[in-house]
Amino acid sequence: MSEERYLLTPGPLTTSAATRAAMQRRDWGSRDGDFTALTRRVRDRLCRLAGAERTHACVLLQGSGTFAVEATIQTFLPRDSGSLLVLVNGAYGRRMVEIARRLGRTVSVLESAEERPVDPAEVAARLDSEPEVTHVALVHCETTSGVLNPLAPIADEVARRGKRLLLDAMSSFGALPIDATAAPFDVLMASSNKCLEGAPGIGIVIAATEALAAARGNASSLSLDLHDQWQGFERSGQWRFTPPTHVLAALDAALDQHEAEGGVAARGARYAANCRALVAGMRRLGFAPVVAEADQAPIIVTFDRPPGLDFEAFYDRLADRGFVIYPGKVMRRDTFRIGCIGAIDETVIAKALAAIEETLREMHVDPRAVLPLAGE
Amino acid sequence: MSEERYLLTPGPLTTSAATRAAMQRRDWGSRDGDFTALTRRVRDRLCRLAGAERTHACVLLQGSGTFAVEATIQTFLPRDSGSLLVLVNGAYGRRMVEIARRLGRTVSVLESAEERPVDPAEVAARLDSEPEVTHVALVHCETTSGVLNPLAPIADEVARRGKRLLLDAMSSFGALPIDATAAPFDVLMASSNKCLEGAPGIGIVIAATEALAAARGNASSLSLDLHDQWQGFERSGQWRFTPPTHVLAALDAALDQHEAEGGVAARGARYAANCRALVAGMRRLGFAPVVAEADQAPIIVTFDRPPGLDFEAFYDRLADRGFVIYPGKVMRRDTFRIGCIGAIDETVIAKALAAIEETLREMHVDPRAVLPLAGE
Repeated sequence: MSEERYLLTPGPLTTSAATRAAMQRRDWGSRDGDFTALTRRVRDRLCRLAGAERTHACVLLQGSGTFAVEATIQTFLPRDSGSLLVLVNGAYGRRMVEIARRLGRTVSVLESAEERPVDPAEVAARLDSEPEVTHVALVHCETTSGVLNPLAPIADEVARRGKRLLLDAMSSFGALPIDATAAPFDVLMASSNKCLEGAPGIGIVIAATEALAAARGNASSLSLDLHDQWQGFERSGQWRFTPPTHVLAALDAALDQHEAEGGVAARGARYAANCRALVAGMRRLGFAPVVAEADQAPIIVTFDRPPGLDFEAFYDRLADRGFVIYPGKVMRRDTFRIGCIGAIDETVIAKALAAIEETLREMHVDPRAVLPLAGE
Repeated sequence: MSEERYLLTPGPLTTSAATRAAMQRRDWGSRDGDFTALTRRVRDRLCRLAGAERTHACVLLQGSGTFAVEATIQTFLPRDSGSLLVLVNGAYGRRMVEIARRLGRTVSVLESAEERPVDPAEVAARLDSEPEVTHVALVHCETTSGVLNPLAPIADEVARRGKRLLLDAMSSFGALPIDATAAPFDVLMASSNKCLEGAPGIGIVIAATEALAAARGNASSLSLDLHDQWQGFERSGQWRFTPPTHVLAALDAALDQHEAEGGVAARGARYAANCRALVAGMRRLGFAPVVAEADQAPIIVTFDRPPGLDFEAFYDRLADRGFVIYPGKVMRRDTFRIGCIGAIDETVIAKALAAIEETLREMHVDPRAVLPLAGE
């Protein structure tokens, strides 16, 4: 079994040794001055990354990205007067609908095909026919398929009608350009462990300060109340409840590396190069990506599973060679996924492709024999 | 400024280098076999620590201890038929009341003095006069004051009346004896970063499997639904949403050390020795503990702040010397707190006492001059 282990998944993913070293180095008192300074620094850096430092505040939350998504719906959707339209083309959109329904909030759904981006014209038409909608939720990159949804035109349709955008940027923030001054959003949701390449354990919410101020009393959950969490940060610089101190230190170290690499543009370029190398190599081996090239985010790629390929065995053999891939999630097709994000570059992708080729040979499977060659 | 930094707080606290090294070593794919095995192992070990392996299941939850407390109330208190009695003698009991009220659950309060343990006879009387109560919430060690509440007799009163006990063992689990077969509880709440000496980021819930099975649909929160979280663990071995992988690895390493030390008895004995040394040393310096010796848990000790002692300055000077203490929380008295848990022993306590003595001299404060000497 390989000593190295690369996580080619939508996260948690491969982190750098420097990021993990930040968790080893020391302990932090959560109410101590050096930890409140660390918290302040990370919050400010994240706001700047979203072009939101003048209008928004960053609220960190213990837990996974889904905790941040639920906290956003709990906090920003008024219990009685709020009405949420969720743009669904994958599992993460569907999860937002489930969260809102469980909370008893008014929610409607605009569902479209998983392999294609949400169509801004359809969003516009729906908003015109449903004027009671107050908030629109969009998943920027749907890792269900790997498709990139068109943020700018959708943000535009939403803003033009005076609605508020809740942007799930879980799998894009840090690698794809997001700028609150260009494509306005009320709330952005992200996490410590995706394109920022930190360790998992912290949800990130970047929210318009006027929306935060107006959100008092909306959340029925104490733990997930982002208004109260924000007030805590503003009043004392402290988290209301025990934060994952080491994970925050890792995020700060990961942000140092993000900056040193050249910020969002450079990180996005590295991922795009990973993605191009991955898709080209997989096409050579006979695998067809599910999403058209123009709609593919450079985050994770979904491939049709060739008939005759036992995915469990394929997964295990690749894992033994040090590469962890990911099962499919697209509902209507038999697929699997390979991520191209994390602290990896094209040399890792090349090694992964070599391992895949070797594994296929070992398993006596040749996708080229069973699938039509997809326009190589 | 000191290089070493000891956290003499109720947590996050000082962890060992071995525990932190587990976060440095590697990354984990959250749906990969080696991570599901790690999850299984940690869940089983925690159940055994509570003497609950035959009757209960361990449900891990992303976030802080408060997330586990809220998840417990969300999940186990039926929305309509549930009625919660909270035994309050400090801030953590009050927080449970706040959580239940925000969730719109029926809640009543038995409040008693913060410096003294909850009286089992009062609990019995209240339960007799309020037969509609279905669940009773008790904070085992209230770190507000440091008082130890009498678990066994209260569990007995609750069980005798067929009510269900929700035990907040946040600051006791791993150091004080808790045994589901001796003092029955439906649900125990704890966290990764207190007496288990892991890193913060994971809430721990140990719940009767029959209660878990019956709890479906109670929680309005998706993220905090422990029934669903449990079902996820049982069905696939996986966390429903991205777990803090490195923090779980640290908890497993911390449990290795817990076992090597000699388990709950040995850990409790080390903390008790720390606590005795701390109280004796502080008495010598003229500080009076707020809680009577017989009621004091060996976790954290609250001292009255002598008039004339500027706490902020005292705190900062001690922090510069490498010892982080904690502000007071007892509502009706001016106090501060010093913890005796974490990866520390009596030599650290002795060093802390020397630092305190030095700091007092530097600040020209002599508590012996202003406080009556408390029975040394």
